[in-house]
Amino acid sequence: MKLQDIYRNLRRDLRWIEGELGKSVETEHHQLNRSATHLLEAGGKRMRPVFVLLSGQFGRYDVGRLKEIAVPLELIHMASLVHDDVIDDAATRRGRQTVKAKWDNRVAMYTGDYIFARALMIASRIGEPAVHQVLSRAIMQMSQGEIEQIRDFYNMDQSLLRYLHRIKRKTALLMAVSCHLGGLVSGADPEWVRCLRLYGYFVGMAFQITDDVLDIVGDEKTLGKPAGSDLRQGNVTLPVIYVLQRGSRKDRRLIANYLETEGRVGSIEEVLHRVSRSDGIGYADRLADRYLEKAMEVLSRLPGGEARESLRLIAEFVGDRSY
Amino acid sequence: MKLQDIYRNLRRDLRWIEGELGKSVETEHHQLNRSATHLLEAGGKRMRPVFVLLSGQFGRYDVGRLKEIAVPLELIHMASLVHDDVIDDAATRRGRQTVKAKWDNRVAMYTGDYIFARALMIASRIGEPAVHQVLSRAIMQMSQGEIEQIRDFYNMDQSLLRYLHRIKRKTALLMAVSCHLGGLVSGADPEWVRCLRLYGYFVGMAFQITDDVLDIVGDEKTLGKPAGSDLRQGNVTLPVIYVLQRGSRKDRRLIANYLETEGRVGSIEEVLHRVSRSDGIGYADRLADRYLEKAMEVLSRLPGGEARESLRLIAEFVGDRSY
Repeated sequence: MKLQDIYRNLRRDLRWIEGELGKSVETEHHQLNRSATHLLEAGGKRMRPVFVLLSGQFGRYDVGRLKEIAVPLELIHMASLVHDDVIDDAATRRGRQTVKAKWDNRVAMYTGDYIFARALMIASRIGEPAVHQVLSRAIMQMSQGEIEQIRDFYNMDQSLLRYLHRIKRKTALLMAVSCHLGGLVSGADPEWVRCLRLYGYFVGMAFQITDDVLDIVGDEKTLGKPAGSDLRQGNVTLPVIYVLQRGSRKDRRLIANYLETEGRVGSIEEVLHRVSRSDGIGYADRLADRYLEKAMEVLSRLPGGEARESLRLIAEFVGDRSY
Repeated sequence: MKLQDIYRNLRRDLRWIEGELGKSVETEHHQLNRSATHLLEAGGKRMRPVFVLLSGQFGRYDVGRLKEIAVPLELIHMASLVHDDVIDDAATRRGRQTVKAKWDNRVAMYTGDYIFARALMIASRIGEPAVHQVLSRAIMQMSQGEIEQIRDFYNMDQSLLRYLHRIKRKTALLMAVSCHLGGLVSGADPEWVRCLRLYGYFVGMAFQITDDVLDIVGDEKTLGKPAGSDLRQGNVTLPVIYVLQRGSRKDRRLIANYLETEGRVGSIEEVLHRVSRSDGIGYADRLADRYLEKAMEVLSRLPGGEARESLRLIAEFVGDRSY
């Protein structure tokens, strides 16, 4: 089985979810329709729905019920992306906001609010209080993660632990919850549900670490955005933290200057060049691999079959994401 | 009975809710704590909790259950205020955003997200699916209302209907839901619950119309913000719409110029002066009174007693808000 086979096997159900996603953001408001549809069409891998569907196969698979989880989870993910972009967008205009730019931002903020509200409305159809509790706790921790990210901007004195805590809330949590709830609503064995949640968490951590590495070593063409966009925004990721703590004195000074002056001293290209040639990249890659090993280990405790094989392939894919 | 008596009678229960509000936004994050606590301390009339408590008296009054509704509703209200302020704040800096200003905005956006997430987490403890459905539908309509508000900025061709639709979503809806859910979770007679919801809606409409009038005729000292802040942001409210449709030719041209140029031609003081001396103010006041009469009418269908008398006093207060 290959990665594409997963999507092929789930094709019909994913298409249904895609349709539901489209319907869920439909509104009579032209502006809202435009921004929400644009977001939807940007697509993405729909990892959260895939996790929900695959985890649902460890219990009584019922796509009608699973989509009621999958759709809100994907919408919550989309809403968080929109809010992430709100201020970045303003920044690219170099602080000179026209009235129009101001409104665009505001529209983006409210588009996020709206998509989020839609997610809640769909989720409210689910009867089980346990689902709401898992979901609302995750949303809360995610919103704390967003604030932690801002707090740590341009902060050199970050520990590895703090970084891991941050990406957990930013990425791993929602993937963990996708696996957790997919298993839960299908009535899978509680021990399996626990394993599924852990799997989602480990894969999510590896995914984000890899993403952060790609942002440093990747090029604009593959990334679809300029390389180093994290650092440009002051987002200090693992490879940079590594160099700040264990790099050569010259590299440390270069990066410290860049961060202390919030990017006004030194060039981003130079910083990226140094970090991408440092041991920080290998270190991050090894850490991602460790998380993936843990994911594989926890999978081995689940019953074999197509669902488990699919989850294994996804973990493998996360490890192999090409630069 | 006077207005203060309502608060006196509910004092113990409101104090409990206040404490819960404080606890609900407590977090280990300094930045979040600061902004959320600041918001809480700014206080306000806590109208939504008051509506929940009073409506709960038409069934089996249980403050333990009512606070699980009152706290999220007040938090949702607060979160919407924070998001309302996000871009306004940026605008007062005249478009010149420092890095710090950028972060402040971002922090404000995420503070709103966080408070909102907290509200959901508290609401998730409530077992009844009906409550979640009422709540999530209201949240969705509110977020649509926010977008409608932006769409209508500086728009001269607004009808009265469109204005009413907008303030319904902005204000009246959450008040209606407060009354609705207070009655619902107390197991009040369904017909009474319907009346309570209508009461909240009518009072909410009157409240917002009055608020919009005050923003034009009030002074900075009583308002706690500069007069005309609605118009400064391009928010075209009822008295202005009235003048645009039925005012003298001179007034119409003055306001049209101001709006068409997004405030660059003409002075805000002159516009405010014209509108505040126009028939638009009396028209808006009469419309608010009509809503309050409807609120009184619907109250008369509820059983008499202290709760009904309190709701009547609140409606009276909304009509008498001093300029």
